[in-house]
Amino acid sequence: MERRSFLKKASVGLAAGAVATVAAPVMAQSALPSLKWKLASSFPKSLDTLFNAIETVAQHVKTATGGRFEIQLFAAGEIVPSAAVLDAVKDGTVEMGQSASYYYVGKDPAFAFDCAVPFGLNSRQQSAWMWSGGGLELMRDLFKDYNIHNIPCGNTGVQMGGWFRKEIKTVADMKGLKMRIAGIAGQVMGKLGVVGQQMGPADIYPALEKGTIDAVEWVGPYDDEKFGFNRVAKYYYYPGFWEAGPQLSIYINLKKWNELPKEYQQALEDACAFAHVQMQADYDVKNVAALRRLVAGGTKLKEFPKEVMVAAQAATLQLYEEFSAKYPRFKKIYGPWKKFRDDEYLWFKVAERAYDSFVFSQSSRR
Amino acid sequence: MERRSFLKKASVGLAAGAVATVAAPVMAQSALPSLKWKLASSFPKSLDTLFNAIETVAQHVKTATGGRFEIQLFAAGEIVPSAAVLDAVKDGTVEMGQSASYYYVGKDPAFAFDCAVPFGLNSRQQSAWMWSGGGLELMRDLFKDYNIHNIPCGNTGVQMGGWFRKEIKTVADMKGLKMRIAGIAGQVMGKLGVVGQQMGPADIYPALEKGTIDAVEWVGPYDDEKFGFNRVAKYYYYPGFWEAGPQLSIYINLKKWNELPKEYQQALEDACAFAHVQMQADYDVKNVAALRRLVAGGTKLKEFPKEVMVAAQAATLQLYEEFSAKYPRFKKIYGPWKKFRDDEYLWFKVAERAYDSFVFSQSSRR
Repeated sequence: MERRSFLKKASVGLAAGAVATVAAPVMAQSALPSLKWKLASSFPKSLDTLFNAIETVAQHVKTATGGRFEIQLFAAGEIVPSAAVLDAVKDGTVEMGQSASYYYVGKDPAFAFDCAVPFGLNSRQQSAWMWSGGGLELMRDLFKDYNIHNIPCGNTGVQMGGWFRKEIKTVADMKGLKMRIAGIAGQVMGKLGVVGQQMGPADIYPALEKGTIDAVEWVGPYDDEKFGFNRVAKYYYYPGFWEAGPQLSIYINLKKWNELPKEYQQALEDACAFAHVQMQADYDVKNVAALRRLVAGGTKLKEFPKEVMVAAQAATLQLYEEFSAKYPRFKKIYGPWKKFRDDEYLWFKVAERAYDSFVFSQSSRR
Repeated sequence: MERRSFLKKASVGLAAGAVATVAAPVMAQSALPSLKWKLASSFPKSLDTLFNAIETVAQHVKTATGGRFEIQLFAAGEIVPSAAVLDAVKDGTVEMGQSASYYYVGKDPAFAFDCAVPFGLNSRQQSAWMWSGGGLELMRDLFKDYNIHNIPCGNTGVQMGGWFRKEIKTVADMKGLKMRIAGIAGQVMGKLGVVGQQMGPADIYPALEKGTIDAVEWVGPYDDEKFGFNRVAKYYYYPGFWEAGPQLSIYINLKKWNELPKEYQQALEDACAFAHVQMQADYDVKNVAALRRLVAGGTKLKEFPKEVMVAAQAATLQLYEEFSAKYPRFKKIYGPWKKFRDDEYLWFKVAERAYDSFVFSQSSRR
């Protein structure tokens, strides 16, 4: 009895303490620090839809924190090169980064799950995996070992398959094709006989023009149009089956993240969510207009032949088995990811597929 | 020359003023008010995926503002009934609301564009319209007249077509069918001979069990399962062509919104964006598991026959012409919305459709 009465008192005491704790942050407001962070992006400003995401994040965070938390933005190459963003955040060269995690498959192929893997999830399914399907926890567990806290921030939607100088009718037509394509996608293409080429953005157009390469994949109509690929390659293939829903990410140095006041963490996380929706929305609007212009200018839109898709999918699944045997991190994520993918396909093939198929078939292409 | 030099000086002065303005909020932090607002939802707590969105918004806003801005949540009926939320926010009975804007088509059918119209946009297209396609501006212009600032906050994805006691094979089978369906969807169904019935959630199950009604549409597998409709109706139809991407919204009394410090406005807007992504993600995860259980329990999944879809689409387009003739607000929004819809269908039928069709056709239904 006495012990119980003691416990009762103790719990009242705790409750009072809790009230005090709730009130405390109000008093502590004036103590919130003024911060000026650097963010290094993997992208140039010319990829304006991608770059706009970090402009949005910086602006929203600044507003939400009354101007106290400022994020300075640096385009690719200004502080570190495009593919060095992860290391720059890991090592604390900058507090934050913006990147596409599949740039780091050389460190571990598991990084690709944070962005896109061939024959993976579409944009909405990728968000479902990250927000509600356990994906974010799995990815944070990986990034933690690289001293990084990652936040999803944007998606392009399914990308195009790229620009080809010649028509592709069979799998045999892929053999020996020199294509600018990298990462896991490059390895899948390699299994079909494509000779993958890595080159920086500035070198792609002249290489395609001269015929040094036969094909190039970049992003989608809006971003591709700026390069003028349509002037030197006639066929524009879809879909980019290696990038069905590529997600962009914000990286934050883990120590810096942990030092942030809860208020700033929340402002940053939610600003990234706003930019996440905005990027997909912007691409969905800009790509239509660009596609119209390209087609009006003579570009031939072509769907990859089914046999190419089937062969590429088989090559992809084989590659995943090879990765699983070789990379424990990949294997650990691939298992639950594969189950999630199968579940999503099951659900989307019912109502979403039925609706989309009907309305798209009723609309004419103009 | 002198005038020009004067202008030059003036602009320097303005720039200095701007710097001062940027610095000011830091000083003003301690003056940020403690607020406790009431939010009335149109939904019961049992619709937990919908209700969770406002729990997320309240929690994130509280954290981002260091506990100073609290939002108390009230389920449907606790302060006002489900369909009275718009008026409650408009009149200032509560500061905020959560609702589905198509509940208010009785005031003006234009409200439906903020949520869903039959044969409208899918979830991602709806977000594209609101964030990047001019939709938000058009809807805010409408809500302003009702003294409300609206923020998109969540989407269910395409809903199911509902539970039917008998199989639907032709348009003729729809004639005389008593179906629980309301709003614009009810009017479309009316044109096919369906007798629409309005009833509260508690009355639906007994009515379907007794055969007072022949069919009911509610949400999707996860929410429908809780009602046990599968025990009294065998056929589960898809897609809910009247709700391809129904968006939920947060309403804020316009005067209250304008009084909010910029910091709180930003925290609230971004918290809604987080909840927006989260709701769709949650539904995409929960619906699969529920659908599996329903099908395992004997539910017959059926796609609406194409002739029903074609007839319903024709009836819908006719209805929109009638609305446009009668309601200037509807007409004003329908024009640009229709153009946007056509654009999105054009874009989605290329790469997105090609990718989804391929991978869904390769996956087996388990």
